[in-house]
Amino acid sequence: MSFLIRISLFLYLFSLVFSQETSNLHHFPRPLILEYPERYEPHLKQGCTDEFQLQCTSWRFAVEANNLSPWRSIPGECADYVKDYLTGRGYELDLVRVSNEAGIFARNVELNGDGKDVWIFDVDETLLSNLPYYAEHGYGLELFDSVEFDKWVEKGSAPAIQSSLKLYEEVLRLGFKVFLLTGRSERHRSVTIENLIKAGFQDYDKLILRGSEDHGKTATRYKSEKRSEMEEEGYRITGNSGDQWSDLLGSSISKRSFKLPNPMYYIP
Amino acid sequence: MSFLIRISLFLYLFSLVFSQETSNLHHFPRPLILEYPERYEPHLKQGCTDEFQLQCTSWRFAVEANNLSPWRSIPGECADYVKDYLTGRGYELDLVRVSNEAGIFARNVELNGDGKDVWIFDVDETLLSNLPYYAEHGYGLELFDSVEFDKWVEKGSAPAIQSSLKLYEEVLRLGFKVFLLTGRSERHRSVTIENLIKAGFQDYDKLILRGSEDHGKTATRYKSEKRSEMEEEGYRITGNSGDQWSDLLGSSISKRSFKLPNPMYYIP
Repeated sequence: MSFLIRISLFLYLFSLVFSQETSNLHHFPRPLILEYPERYEPHLKQGCTDEFQLQCTSWRFAVEANNLSPWRSIPGECADYVKDYLTGRGYELDLVRVSNEAGIFARNVELNGDGKDVWIFDVDETLLSNLPYYAEHGYGLELFDSVEFDKWVEKGSAPAIQSSLKLYEEVLRLGFKVFLLTGRSERHRSVTIENLIKAGFQDYDKLILRGSEDHGKTATRYKSEKRSEMEEEGYRITGNSGDQWSDLLGSSISKRSFKLPNPMYYIP
Repeated sequence: MSFLIRISLFLYLFSLVFSQETSNLHHFPRPLILEYPERYEPHLKQGCTDEFQLQCTSWRFAVEANNLSPWRSIPGECADYVKDYLTGRGYELDLVRVSNEAGIFARNVELNGDGKDVWIFDVDETLLSNLPYYAEHGYGLELFDSVEFDKWVEKGSAPAIQSSLKLYEEVLRLGFKVFLLTGRSERHRSVTIENLIKAGFQDYDKLILRGSEDHGKTATRYKSEKRSEMEEEGYRITGNSGDQWSDLLGSSISKRSFKLPNPMYYIP
């Protein structure tokens, strides 16, 4: 097949994927991997590696700059790209950079000394890594299976993201109160605490999980409400680290937000 | 020189660049290219291309995800990378993607029909491209020279970003009011109007430039104030397209924002 035809087919498949992004998906509390994206024919890939690299990097940029909100699935063409990114050095470099930047900011904040300066951390893909789970499930390409994922959560064995642990320890040392604000359900409180301890996360001040009244809310709304409650209690939200834009946007936004990379799934 | 030493030196130079990011630069209305970054020794680059590619892609991600705010200059190590990105297909692909996404969103908005649904566009690096200027000035690597840049602006010959022009025409066709909100000064009103017409941008409803009362304000504050005035006048800000986070964040935020790529400069 000629190069031009290959590229055209590729762009067509790409446009197919994106043309499905139009529906308004605002009530899923979970990753939006609702269906398998169309697969490309493997023989198309040969000779197209640079084109895939370019297109998938561009897709990943759009994800991280929140231009695709909401997106439902990784373009099938980018399955290998996302896997390579996550298992290669790219993901780790990005994680280290964002924690370094957050550390520089944290060290330059003048704390009030009244114990009301807060740093918020999300949990999944921010403090704890579910990469071992996603490695078994196509790195986000597979349909999200909440039953299977819950089994993984209940094992309580998600490893720490090391650069986040370093930042976590640093903000505690600097005197921030640390609040963990997660989309996990209250029924996973004990296993989450166990997992956090096992991974090295100690001395946080609060662990906030979704209560029964929070189910059905978007993460953006749920987390904004919780941040608003913090402010009502007199806390100043100085830093906020999360892998989803729904961890960071909405109302009662922190003074500075840090977006960790996550090309595997999108939570509205 | 061994590979390990090269990498170490590279990482050291990188950390130098980022260690200068700590000061709080909140009163520059202009690109923050305040000084030449440290240059790497050219011979270091050989054999390190992949490492540079990886590190500079990571840097660019951090820029686009707003993790580096404020950043002052392109890391010297990434000068060639940024040039290649801007002059190669990467930049164009990213521009096309963000306009496509914005178009999908715009077509799915239900307009109220009262002429109060607004789409805001920034001007520089959003509708008009200053790439011909920056090509002569190191693609953002050089110290920003406001005198030279003003001369370029006064030529009124900045070309359209074609994908933005397409989106611009589409949102007008759909019935949005289009407001242009730019950090350019009122004294450049005529030349800006001329340039916009020459580049194909017509039928916008308002062109808002910085008046004397706006000088000294950050772009975030200036643009938030202007958006707030729009809301007071009964407009609903539905979409907002800009290449700077200061075009999009602050208060009176649009329903959806679209971040165009810009690895050349940062405006707070």
